Amino acid sequence: MPMEYHFARRMRCIPPSFLGELFRVSSQPGVISFAGGLPGADVIDVAGIAEASRHVLEEEGRTALQYSTTDGYLPLREYIADRYRRRLGLPATAGEIQIVNGSQQCLDLVARILTDPGDHIGMERPGYLGAIEAFSLCEPVIHTVPLHDDGPDLACFSDLLGKHPLRFFYGIPNSQNPSGRTYSEESRRAIAEIVQETDTLFYEDDAFGELFFDGRARPPVTRFLPGQGIMSGSFSKIIAPGMRIGWLYAPQPVLAQFNCAKQAADLHSNFLCQMVLHRYLATHDLDSLARAVSRVYGERCRLMCELLDDLMPAEMTHTTPEGGMFLMCTLPRGTSSMEVFSRGVQEGVAVLPGVPFCVDGSGDDTIRLNFSSAGEEAIREGMTRLARVIRDLG
Amino acid sequence: MPMEYHFARRMRCIPPSFLGELFRVSSQPGVISFAGGLPGADVIDVAGIAEASRHVLEEEGRTALQYSTTDGYLPLREYIADRYRRRLGLPATAGEIQIVNGSQQCLDLVARILTDPGDHIGMERPGYLGAIEAFSLCEPVIHTVPLHDDGPDLACFSDLLGKHPLRFFYGIPNSQNPSGRTYSEESRRAIAEIVQETDTLFYEDDAFGELFFDGRARPPVTRFLPGQGIMSGSFSKIIAPGMRIGWLYAPQPVLAQFNCAKQAADLHSNFLCQMVLHRYLATHDLDSLARAVSRVYGERCRLMCELLDDLMPAEMTHTTPEGGMFLMCTLPRGTSSMEVFSRGVQEGVAVLPGVPFCVDGSGDDTIRLNFSSAGEEAIREGMTRLARVIRDLG
Repeated sequence: MPMEYHFARRMRCIPPSFLGELFRVSSQPGVISFAGGLPGADVIDVAGIAEASRHVLEEEGRTALQYSTTDGYLPLREYIADRYRRRLGLPATAGEIQIVNGSQQCLDLVARILTDPGDHIGMERPGYLGAIEAFSLCEPVIHTVPLHDDGPDLACFSDLLGKHPLRFFYGIPNSQNPSGRTYSEESRRAIAEIVQETDTLFYEDDAFGELFFDGRARPPVTRFLPGQGIMSGSFSKIIAPGMRIGWLYAPQPVLAQFNCAKQAADLHSNFLCQMVLHRYLATHDLDSLARAVSRVYGERCRLMCELLDDLMPAEMTHTTPEGGMFLMCTLPRGTSSMEVFSRGVQEGVAVLPGVPFCVDGSGDDTIRLNFSSAGEEAIREGMTRLARVIRDLG
Repeated sequence: MPMEYHFARRMRCIPPSFLGELFRVSSQPGVISFAGGLPGADVIDVAGIAEASRHVLEEEGRTALQYSTTDGYLPLREYIADRYRRRLGLPATAGEIQIVNGSQQCLDLVARILTDPGDHIGMERPGYLGAIEAFSLCEPVIHTVPLHDDGPDLACFSDLLGKHPLRFFYGIPNSQNPSGRTYSEESRRAIAEIVQETDTLFYEDDAFGELFFDGRARPPVTRFLPGQGIMSGSFSKIIAPGMRIGWLYAPQPVLAQFNCAKQAADLHSNFLCQMVLHRYLATHDLDSLARAVSRVYGERCRLMCELLDDLMPAEMTHTTPEGGMFLMCTLPRGTSSMEVFSRGVQEGVAVLPGVPFCVDGSGDDTIRLNFSSAGEEAIREGMTRLARVIRDLG
C-alpha cells in the first residue's frame, strides 16, 4: 500500500508559486528576463566583499564560524540603528534590531507572532508576492487596499481599519514591489494618523529605501507612528542577496516575541556573513555605494520607460518609479498578462504577470518589469521583443 | 494611551527559553560552561574554510553573492546524497535533499508542513529542547516515550502509535541530545516495523551521526522505512555552526511541501556559505575530518565520565555516550537540577537542568553536560566545582 501523506491545512493556503517556474524560465538560454528580482550582477562589489571576508576569517575566524546569539552581531545592529537615526530620523537602538535571513524571513516571523488563523490583516493591491506567500501560511483573512501613484487609497484604508481589527497592515512605501510606486509624504502622514486611532501595527517593508534615483531619503511611516510601526530592511538590494542578511526594527515587546520565534525557527542567522557585512560596511561608505547602484538603476529605469513609450501600443501605460528595481505596466484592454508571459517566453522575453500579486484574482491586466538586472543592450532587445508580443496579442 | 500589543496564540505555547539565559551565563567571566552545545572551537578548521572562501569569491563570487534557488546549491546536495548512499546505504538523490539554515530550521518547517493545531506528534523523553520550542509553535499535542539506553521504550512506542494518529515521531537515534544515548540496531528495526503499520512519519534527526568515537556509521531508522522516514543533517557539528548549513532528506511529496514552506520562510539559505562549504568538502576528506573531531570529543567524554565516577556521590549516575557532544547525569535523590544550575553558576560551573527537555514537567532529577567545547583542564576544574555543588546540595 503506498504511503498516504497528510499535510497541514496551512499548506493548502499557499498560492501556487510562480517563482520556481520563473527561475527556470529566466535561466533558459536566449531568454531576456525582466521577470526576476535580481540586483544587477555588475553592481555587486565582489572584490570588496572578498577582502572583508578574508579579514574576518583571518582575524576573528573562530568567532565567525561558531554558534552565536539569536539577535545577531551587535556591531552590525549598531550600524543599522545608527544609520536609521542619522538618515531616517528614527530613534532606533541596537536593542530594537534583530538580524534575519533576508527580509523575507521578517514576513514569515512577523505574521506568525501576530496572527492566528482567521485573523484579519491588510496589504496593498497589487502587493508583494513573497508577502502573500508567507502570510498565507498563517491562514489569515487578507484584505487589500488599492495602491495609487501617491500611496494607498486613503478612503479604503480608513474604511478597512474601521471595519476590521487588523493585526497589521503591510506596505512598501518606497518603490513598491511590484508597482514601483512611492507614497507621498502627505500619504505617509495620513496613513499614520489613521493607524494611530487603532490597535493595528503598520508593517513597513523598506527593501528599496536606499535606492532612490535622486539619493534623497523619504521619511518612513514608522517615524510618524511611535510604538505602532515595525520596519524591515535588507542588504540584499544594495550589497549582496546571496548572504541573506536583513533585519527587523520593532518596538521592544514585539521584538521580544519576534526573537523567540526566530530562535525556534533557526537559532540565528549566518554569523560569518553578518561579520563580513559589518566589516565591509565599516570600511566602505554605504552612501556612495547606494548612490552608485541607484545611478545605474535610474539609467536603466529611464531607458526602459522611454522604450515603453516609444515601442508599445499607446493604450499601454506604465508607472514611473523614483527608485527601486521594478515598474508596472497596464496592458491594452483585453490583453492577458498570463498570455504575455507564455508568449513572451516563446519569443525570448520573460515578464511577471500581475495575477499572483492580487489575492482577489485581479491583476491580469498588468505585468511587472524588473529594470535592475539587465544591461542597456538587453533592455533594448527585450523591449523590442515584448512590443512584438503585445502587438501580436492585441 | 499606551499601545496594547496582541500576539498570536502560538506564542503562548513556546516554553520559556533557557537558551538566552544560558548564553549570558556561559559568557560570564570565570564560569566553566558545560551548559551550551558548542563544538570545540579548537576543532574548527578556520584556515581551511578561509581558503575555500577565498577561492569561491575569486572564481565564482558573482554567483555566490546573488540570489539563488530555494532548494540549495546542487553540487552540495549531490555531495550529501552521495555520502548518504556510500556511508548509510540510503538510496538518496540530490532531488531529495533541501538545504536549510542549520537543522533547527528543519524542526520548524517539518512541523509546519505536517501539523495543524491539536494534531498529535511524538518524541523521546527527555527530548531535544530546540525541537520542543519549534514544534510548540504549531500548537500540537506532544506525546513522549521514555528513552532507554538502547532506544525508545518499545511497548510505550507501539502503544502510542496505536492510540493516536501521530503526524510524526521525532527522534535522535545517534548520540541523542540531551541524553547521549544511541539506539541499538535491534531498536532501529523494531521502531521501523511499528511505524510501518501506521501513517506516521519517522523524523530522524541525525546531527551527530558523524561523531561516533569508534568511527563506525550506524544504520539510520530511515533505511528501514522507505517512504516514511525523513532525516535531517547538519554541518554545524563537524565543520562550522556559524555558517548555518543543514539539510533535509525526505520522500519527494514531503520535500515538495517542505520546499514551498522554505521559500515562504526565507527564499533560500545563505548561498555564499553553501558554495564555500562545498568547496571545502571537495578539497578535504570528511571521513578524516570527522575522525579527528570524534577522537577529540571521545577523549573529553571519557575524561568527563571518569571524573564523574571519581568525584560525584555514588548515588549519581550518568549515561556513557558512544559519540556526540552530550551526556546526561541522574542526580542523587532529592537534588534538584534547577538548584544545581543556580548554585553552579555561583560556583563558576554551568550545567543544563533537565526540566526543559521534558514537556511533562519531569526531568528535574537530571542534568545535561556538554563535553565537546571545554578542554581537558577546564573539564577537570569544572567537574571538581560541580562535585562540590552537588555534595553541598545533598
